[in-house]
Parts: sequence; structure tokens; C-alpha cells
Amino acid sequence: MDAGCRITQTMRLRDIDYTLYLVTDRGLSRGRSTAEIVEAAVHGGATCVQLREKDCTTREFVEQARAIRDRLQALNTPLIINDRIDVALAVKADGVHLGQSDMPLELARAIVADTMLIGISAESIRDAVEAEKGGADYLGVSPIYATPTKTDTAPPLGLEGLRQIRAAVNLPLVGIGGLNHDNVGDVIRIGAEGVAVVTAIVAADDPEQAARSLRSVIEKARQP
Amino acid sequence: MDAGCRITQTMRLRDIDYTLYLVTDRGLSRGRSTAEIVEAAVHGGATCVQLREKDCTTREFVEQARAIRDRLQALNTPLIINDRIDVALAVKADGVHLGQSDMPLELARAIVADTMLIGISAESIRDAVEAEKGGADYLGVSPIYATPTKTDTAPPLGLEGLRQIRAAVNLPLVGIGGLNHDNVGDVIRIGAEGVAVVTAIVAADDPEQAARSLRSVIEKARQP
Repeated sequence: MDAGCRITQTMRLRDIDYTLYLVTDRGLSRGRSTAEIVEAAVHGGATCVQLREKDCTTREFVEQARAIRDRLQALNTPLIINDRIDVALAVKADGVHLGQSDMPLELARAIVADTMLIGISAESIRDAVEAEKGGADYLGVSPIYATPTKTDTAPPLGLEGLRQIRAAVNLPLVGIGGLNHDNVGDVIRIGAEGVAVVTAIVAADDPEQAARSLRSVIEKARQP
Repeated sequence: MDAGCRITQTMRLRDIDYTLYLVTDRGLSRGRSTAEIVEAAVHGGATCVQLREKDCTTREFVEQARAIRDRLQALNTPLIINDRIDVALAVKADGVHLGQSDMPLELARAIVADTMLIGISAESIRDAVEAEKGGADYLGVSPIYATPTKTDTAPPLGLEGLRQIRAAVNLPLVGIGGLNHDNVGDVIRIGAEGVAVVTAIVAADDPEQAARSLRSVIEKARQP
């Protein structure tokens, strides 16, 4: 990668819009394909997609990621891969999202350098401050509320926990965990750049309409 | 990496000795740590180690791989990581071993370039020829015999299948699958550069002695 290309890439990564951040979940998709749900969500207003696959081979994950990446490129929407830097590199994703049980940030950054953004799941102020010091590009602040989607999470932070993390770091924050039409506005009003949802879109009767409705609540919450 | 460093790295990778190739398996280790078994096997004569972990988080895999890499560096023995290019990059392993359900060779090579060797599991002549064309560094020819270690494998190739693959490609071959003290000699006499074992070392009462005995049979089979 020459210097000119690197500058373009870095500028593009800075421009990522975290407003409505979809995290996929094959198990909650009610038989619909992940590609189908992703496309509907983006049409409805999702601005960013994280592909999360926990129970498939590396080859299946790569094939799925390539198909989703192609659709998202056509929709000018960034793709972030959960956990797997190898898959993210293979499909030239825009970023990778790492939880506290995934690759440590320092090692991940040494691998991807500045070719890819790295998001970190922060479950405490300490996680958030460490991730900012370590060069994370954004934080997934989780869980805001208890969620059936993930059972290995820390206790809910609540809005007060989010407020404390907002005060402690300057990175873009994306709230996640138990978020839906009724509470995403609170998360935005506290100062998060975006909200991440799984169930509220993936398991909805109409994922496109669900995304549209969430996006509308978020935009209203941003108005002064 | 500058040109001088790259040349040194490439030369080092070419020198890998596949003679007795240990593949780890935590589940077969009878409560002993993988690090303990690896160290005993190398003292007994194992020349190369592949770390295989299927049921742990990325962070656990990286931590395990770092510990094993440190021990193996002290013993001047190469470390190859199964499936996970991200883990291999994180710990600067000597190579990565990819099965037919792992990352496709072409994508893997684009990620690691010539900084790391890539071994491919070949279950047929076609797999072997494709992997050679695609730039693999060595082939794991599997399974030679039926094995309880892996249940997702193709039908056994037998010695005749190994002989046909030996005739079809020039790459170093490592036979794997159901190999033990009684049959490793046959695999070497057919022209494989090495034999890979799991159970015969990992589950042995005395892994060091098991490795020593296997190594002795291999060296005898190499004598004209």
C-alpha cells in the first residue's frame, strides 16, 4: 500500500457513521438469510454492519463475509467483522470488532496497522480508558441493558454507566445491549454516536421497517 | 520487513524438518498441559509442532500459542498454528496449517505473503495438485488410516493413496491419520518427508518416550 492509498483509506475509515449499527445473528434470523436481513436493514437506515458468526468454519465465515461485503459495497455501507482478524483481512473489511475475550488490542493493531479500524467492547470505565489509550477507533459500550442475545456479558451498565464512560473518553461510543425502539433515544441523548442492535432488527417481522423506525427515533433524539 | 530480513526468513522456513510432526489435542492429553506434552515430545525427537485448538476463545488461543512459541523457540523447533491465521500472525508463528474447511489458500497467501509457511491438508490427488499450484509449502496427506481423532475426514487414502500423491506432486508430504509405532515406517518408505501424529504422542503414558520410539522407527525406515 503506497502513501497516497493509505491516506485515502484512513480518511474513509474516519468517516464511518455509527448511527444505527446492525450486529448480525444467524440464530435469531428466523430462517431468513443474513444477507437478506443486512440488505433490508441498510435500506431502512442502518449505517454500519457487524458480521458475527460463532458456529461455522473459517471457510464458511469467509464466504459469508465476501457475499455481505459485496452487497454492502454496492450500498456504500461499511462492514465490520466480529472477532476474526483473519476473516476481516481476507475480505478486506472496513474493520474488526474485538470483545474482551478476543485478540488483545495491541496485537490486533500490530497485525492490521492503519488499514482497518478496530472497535473494542468496553464493559467498564477501565475497559474504555484502556482501549482509548491502546488506539481503538470506537467503543461498543455493553451491555446497556440485560440482553438474551449474549449470556457471557458483564452486569448492565445502564444509562448512568454510559454517562460515566462518555465523560471518561473521547472515542465514538456505540451503545449495545437490550436496545430497541423505546430506549435508543436515551442512549443518543447521553452522547453516544450510535446504537447497535441485534434482536430489534434481526428478529423483527420486517427488518427494513424496524431499522427505519429505530433510525427515526435516533434522529429525533439528536434534535436540540 | 526489508529485503535482507525477508531472505533470511524464507531460508529459515525452507529448512523446516517435518520428520516427526506433533499435532496437539487438548482433549486427548489426559489432564496434562499442552505445553508439557509439547516439551516432552520435542525432547523425545519431535521436529515440528502444530498447535490445534478448536474450543477456546481467540484470547485463550493466543495466550496458549505465545506460551508454546516461547518454549519452542528455546528448543529451536518450529510452531505451526492450525486454521487461525490471526493467531499465527499475533504470535509470529512459523506457519499456519489449513484444512479444506479453513481459509482458502489463495486468500491466506495474500495475507501472510512470504512471512509464513502454509501447509494444506490434502485428502485426494486433486487437493494435492491444487495446493501445489496454489503455492503451498507442504501437504498434510490425510487420513492415511481411519482415526478417532477427527471424525470429519475423508475416507482413508491408505498407502496406495499416499503413493499416488507422492507421484503427483513435488512438495514435502507429511502423512497423518491413524499413524503409530507400527506403521510410520511404511509412510516414510513410500517417500513422505515426515509423519504427523496426535494420539500416539499426546495420549501416551510417556509422551517423550513415545516420540523417541517413533523417531527411531522413522530413522530406521530412511536407511537404504
